[in-house]
Amino acid sequence: MKYVFGAAPPVARLKPGNILDANSLDCFGNALQKPGDSFSLVKGDNPLTGPFYIEGAEPGDTLVVHLLDLQVDGKQGVGTFSPGFGAINATHYTPMLEKEALPEKIWFYPIDHAERTATFQALDSSYKVKIPLHRFLGCIGVAPANGEARSSIVPAEFGGNMDAPEASAGNTLHLPVNVAGALFYFGDGHAAMGDGEIAGSAIEVPMKVRLQFDLVKGRHTGWPRFENEKEIMAAGIYRPVDDAVRIAFTELVGWIHADYGLSELDAYELLSKVGKIHLTEMVDPNYVVVASVEKKYLPPKK
Amino acid sequence: MKYVFGAAPPVARLKPGNILDANSLDCFGNALQKPGDSFSLVKGDNPLTGPFYIEGAEPGDTLVVHLLDLQVDGKQGVGTFSPGFGAINATHYTPMLEKEALPEKIWFYPIDHAERTATFQALDSSYKVKIPLHRFLGCIGVAPANGEARSSIVPAEFGGNMDAPEASAGNTLHLPVNVAGALFYFGDGHAAMGDGEIAGSAIEVPMKVRLQFDLVKGRHTGWPRFENEKEIMAAGIYRPVDDAVRIAFTELVGWIHADYGLSELDAYELLSKVGKIHLTEMVDPNYVVVASVEKKYLPPKK
Amino acid sequence: MKYVFGAAPPVARLKPGNILDANSLDCFGNALQKPGDSFSLVKGDNPLTGPFYIEGAEPGDTLVVHLLDLQVDGKQGVGTFSPGFGAINATHYTPMLEKEALPEKIWFYPIDHAERTATFQALDSSYKVKIPLHRFLGCIGVAPANGEARSSIVPAEFGGNMDAPEASAGNTLHLPVNVAGALFYFGDGHAAMGDGEIAGSAIEVPMKVRLQFDLVKGRHTGWPRFENEKEIMAAGIYRPVDDAVRIAFTELVGWIHADYGLSELDAYELLSKVGKIHLTEMVDPNYVVVASVEKKYLPPKK
Amino acid sequence: MKYVFGAAPPVARLKPGNILDANSLDCFGNALQKPGDSFSLVKGDNPLTGPFYIEGAEPGDTLVVHLLDLQVDGKQGVGTFSPGFGAINATHYTPMLEKEALPEKIWFYPIDHAERTATFQALDSSYKVKIPLHRFLGCIGVAPANGEARSSIVPAEFGGNMDAPEASAGNTLHLPVNVAGALFYFGDGHAAMGDGEIAGSAIEVPMKVRLQFDLVKGRHTGWPRFENEKEIMAAGIYRPVDDAVRIAFTELVGWIHADYGLSELDAYELLSKVGKIHLTEMVDPNYVVVASVEKKYLPPKK
Repeated sequence: MKYVFGAAPPVARLKPGNILDANSLDCFGNALQKPGDSFSLVKGDNPLTGPFYIEGAEPGDTLVVHLLDLQVDGKQGVGTFSPGFGAINATHYTPMLEKEALPEKIWFYPIDHAERTATFQALDSSYKVKIPLHRFLGCIGVAPANGEARSSIVPAEFGGNMDAPEASAGNTLHLPVNVAGALFYFGDGHAAMGDGEIAGSAIEVPMKVRLQFDLVKGRHTGWPRFENEKEIMAAGIYRPVDDAVRIAFTELVGWIHADYGLSELDAYELLSKVGKIHLTEMVDPNYVVVASVEKKYLPPKK
Repeated sequence: MKYVFGAAPPVARLKPGNILDANSLDCFGNALQKPGDSFSLVKGDNPLTGPFYIEGAEPGDTLVVHLLDLQVDGKQGVGTFSPGFGAINATHYTPMLEKEALPEKIWFYPIDHAERTATFQALDSSYKVKIPLHRFLGCIGVAPANGEARSSIVPAEFGGNMDAPEASAGNTLHLPVNVAGALFYFGDGHAAMGDGEIAGSAIEVPMKVRLQFDLVKGRHTGWPRFENEKEIMAAGIYRPVDDAVRIAFTELVGWIHADYGLSELDAYELLSKVGKIHLTEMVDPNYVVVASVEKKYLPPKK
Repeated sequence: MKYVFGAAPPVARLKPGNILDANSLDCFGNALQKPGDSFSLVKGDNPLTGPFYIEGAEPGDTLVVHLLDLQVDGKQGVGTFSPGFGAINATHYTPMLEKEALPEKIWFYPIDHAERTATFQALDSSYKVKIPLHRFLGCIGVAPANGEARSSIVPAEFGGNMDAPEASAGNTLHLPVNVAGALFYFGDGHAAMGDGEIAGSAIEVPMKVRLQFDLVKGRHTGWPRFENEKEIMAAGIYRPVDDAVRIAFTELVGWIHADYGLSELDAYELLSKVGKIHLTEMVDPNYVVVASVEKKYLPPKK
Repeated sequence: MKYVFGAAPPVARLKPGNILDANSLDCFGNALQKPGDSFSLVKGDNPLTGPFYIEGAEPGDTLVVHLLDLQVDGKQGVGTFSPGFGAINATHYTPMLEKEALPEKIWFYPIDHAERTATFQALDSSYKVKIPLHRFLGCIGVAPANGEARSSIVPAEFGGNMDAPEASAGNTLHLPVNVAGALFYFGDGHAAMGDGEIAGSAIEVPMKVRLQFDLVKGRHTGWPRFENEKEIMAAGIYRPVDDAVRIAFTELVGWIHADYGLSELDAYELLSKVGKIHLTEMVDPNYVVVASVEKKYLPPKK
């Protein structure tokens, strides 16, 4: 199992246009299966499937990933609270002195494939409620630039652990190619997730995925971008959230200016009226914001 | 005109249950009316209507504001870019050395009341596009605690310039009462706004409003809260956005625990799966996040 | 007692050049005197002495405060830890879920005026150690601009609770005049303090002060500035610390450019080699950074 | 040349107690030598010397690096301003729309070894001033944990580009060992630097260094720590500065508690009175704070 986005021998090679059918373990390597299981069973977080070598991909190109289909591989998902990880508790990077920390907890979510729901079951009461599935990949990315290798816990310019619900079937993801073959990885399937992933986990599931790859030769992508028929979506990834927002919107203004022809100030003004901000997660080492706009508000593409 | 939330002689007194019909100027005091007008005409930002004294309101109570109806008062709105204000340019509180700053700009938005749209008209091209109206009050709040008086540019615990689209017809707002009579103010009507209000303005309009007031005696509200039939929504207001998110979600966890009976950890976990984050603005001196959850995911209210 | 920087009837009027001898209570209103005393005795934090009306001061001028002499008024100081306040624990503006918060604590510091030391006495052991005195005013400022009134807990453009050790005898402080007479306040004497005031208090003491006032007519000061024979020092006050640093250094670059004639880029480069950063406190609602440079590195003043 | 901290074949092997004499290029690979040279000559930033394999070092140990001697290797240093890098201009991670960015600039600093000074020479005037040398290593660190490889621009738990003047002769640095042999690297010599390294560079120089290594077997170091006869110093490395401060002080409180026996709350209080904060740089992808206390304020080491 791989736990790092970086240069490694590819597990398979694909050509642009090829379709990949593959699967991934859940973020705990499928180690948590039943009440009583504990984190000590987990060998590493976010095991990755890959890397896949995309023929012809060279640094400076853009890798295009069409997310064709994502299916939960199994009958339950898992959610966890782990001390030191989360948006409103003391963490590794926002440490606090405290008399006593919150304890480790695990929730299991039965999944009903027919009605496409997962069921939340409270630990401290008998309360249950159904949650509609929204399946996506928490981890999706390529080998980083400059010879770096990054933990599968980290999102950054190369994608990675973006925990973005935008990485779902029907959307297309653009990623920078930093090394020959791009070296594409994925993992960390999610059956559903709230904004911010605030307690530190989604409904974590193994996943069966169908993806198709393309290349845009000679076009560099600075930060990950999503697109579908209705929207263009630019990711900004850093800390604090303020900087993630700044990255996402300077990218989106630049995108609109370059591809749709509005001046930068007109694009800035228009986004101030119709732009959307999605804070996908505020728990990983970097935070992720997706800024988007509906295409119906933009001029025809140049 | 008043430009400060604070203790001042009331313009009128209302009893709980009373309905208030009143209007407000736009955030520029209606000074910008046609191409060629400039910021030098503006006497102050965010002129406020009020304060209104609510009979029986005492410190420690909660003021309940039902937003019954909001109508744009006029045929156009205005949007502006003002150097030193905005989410992705150098500002008063995030200053930067630069060779040359972006210039001041003003956009006018014709409003069609029948079809409920405003029209964006690009300054640097002939592009136009219609935007559906979503009418709300940018400024809504009460006199602050501890003898403070705060500029109508600032949002904080007392509400104020939250620029929250949640302050729209059909929603109810809960605010802390800090002084006798609460001293309620409103202003800064918006016809529509993107998340983050990133270039520094919404579609700014004069507004006609119908509000109804209630009191919850002896119940303190720490930060503003919105509610409607479908959702509960807690505001967090500070800088950086990270802290606004922390405030909003600790409030929401506490609200669910107190009123709906889930344990704090169960509430935290559930929100990690179905919670929503709305970054309403990232341009005012404090930033505003509204964290929310649909009631259908919660147990019956206690 | 006053707990707000704002417009209020002056307690005295002084002319430029006049010397003021006055005293202040400690930040707890002298309420904590002996082991066993608790926070319930405290009527308000940071009681202020003032306001003093400076004849001739008008908005747009700069008030010059020469700190001539500061003496601890009494034989002991006090330090406290208060849940919800501090740099490395959950706070009002950086809230965290926790199983159990740290408890309230009070330390008393005997002061030896002859040897100019205060003695730290551990609560959980018999350890004691002497700390050299460095006496300064935690609160020093004027009425804010735009009709605001701000809590004496808050530092901002008008000065206020800067907790800056630079507010000590021998230094001069420049503050913006926002209202007629400036309306000067002070309080919150400190006998000594570590950088960041991280646990939320200094060695808190009543103070006897001797100050002299001057005016620079028609010269606006954006943010507080300190100066002595050897250094120029610009304060930046906001959150996160990053923005406080940005404010302080853009101010310092501008100061060097305007008064000492270096180009902005030469000043920026020189500060990158010899500039100093002092994070005075990271516990109040806004954080305070003082950026400074020794005059020996600057060209002759223009 | 290596530009990454990570697992790589060692250039040499040393035993604990061994002394290493080696040298490093400046941060531009010595490419900028005279007026007229430009950044296009630079092949990569922060070339590293190493890695050195320390015999017996295993994950979970602490590597001890005694900085015995550092000498500037040459007769000049260089300082630069590069658009997109710096504390008070738009950057890669804090991007801003601007009409026109500041231009690239290079300053050369003649070094006088006898009087131990470097001379700042303004570009836009004839002003010159001498700056005392304080020689240190900007980059010093080991291979990261979890199979990561990190750019030599980045500081993190493994040390790296901390730009800490504490990495100077007479000080000892403790680093976590993450891989067999630790794999120690250094580079990026600085002849002098201001706090924050605000314009993005120090006085950049090639360096001759003499280092001695030791191991503390079985003792893990979470974040880099410095020590000398007079002080203990804990580094905190992240963004925003607030979090770097939180990391540094929770480390320092823990250090004092573990090695000097004060309770955590007594240590917190004592640091609030005598602790020091050094913001070494606010320009790299992560920011670095060193929190310190003089040993004279601590009980005898346990």
